[in-house]
Amino acid sequence: MGARLFDVKQSGRRARRRGESRALALGILPELIGYHLRLVQRAIFADFAESVGAEGISPGLFGVLVLVEANPGLKQQRLAEAAHLDRSSLVPVIDKLEAKGLVERRAADRRSNGLFLTAEGTALLRSLKRRVRRHERRVVENLSAREQRELIRLLGRILPGKR
Amino acid sequence: MGARLFDVKQSGRRARRRGESRALALGILPELIGYHLRLVQRAIFADFAESVGAEGISPGLFGVLVLVEANPGLKQQRLAEAAHLDRSSLVPVIDKLEAKGLVERRAADRRSNGLFLTAEGTALLRSLKRRVRRHERRVVENLSAREQRELIRLLGRILPGKR
Repeated sequence: MGARLFDVKQSGRRARRRGESRALALGILPELIGYHLRLVQRAIFADFAESVGAEGISPGLFGVLVLVEANPGLKQQRLAEAAHLDRSSLVPVIDKLEAKGLVERRAADRRSNGLFLTAEGTALLRSLKRRVRRHERRVVENLSAREQRELIRLLGRILPGKR
Repeated sequence: MGARLFDVKQSGRRARRRGESRALALGILPELIGYHLRLVQRAIFADFAESVGAEGISPGLFGVLVLVEANPGLKQQRLAEAAHLDRSSLVPVIDKLEAKGLVERRAADRRSNGLFLTAEGTALLRSLKRRVRRHERRVVENLSAREQRELIRLLGRILPGKR
């Protein structure tokens, strides 16, 4: 559709047949690590949605299920901190997981409620983990084990004070 | 608040004074590249919001402004593809930039409209780019030039077919 911008001799229709392979000018973007991370993040999100997200489970919801399983009785405030969400953003997430019957709020000690997986949540998470591991193998399939470690090391050095 | 889960001898109040440094159990998450990328992405987003986003400009909106400047008369469909958004997600983004007086839709050729920066958009983008470069320097400050190149190379090998 926009091919005329880049080659006035080529009709839009012909460009569409050729898959509109002519690249846009990207300006400053390719110099920015943040831009590359955003592209990768989007690709991972898309693959996750296709391969794991059949039940409407996003990477963030998956992360919440994993944290609740690993920390039975987890308090919402603590989970909000771990998930880097403010409490008002976390509440609808928990509501959603509770409505799906995956998580329940019940007494964690004498004074307050905590979060627990339901039996259904535990079973779904078992299946999700299998799918996430397959998804993760696709994510890293072009990286050697050494490169995967190196990538995690380099990522760990980005804005460590902001985690 | 949830410190009792991890050390029953320590009161929640004392834990809060100590900054609740006791870590949650993270289960499978640290094994997943997607999890590390999400943490980094969030840290970058937070730094961007603090240092660049005064006018409510997110990294995504900044990217759209850069693409429109670099490709005057850009068609919305082409921009949606470049920004990896479906057209229905892009329309409110463009509406927002148009309402701010930064972008305008006008005739790009005889048959259709394209996107252009306004004078105000051009001026704001100049200032944003300066701030984004400062933000980017913070993002990479713990990485050598070689490590930055290596990081971009490794990121480029993740799900190349999904970009």
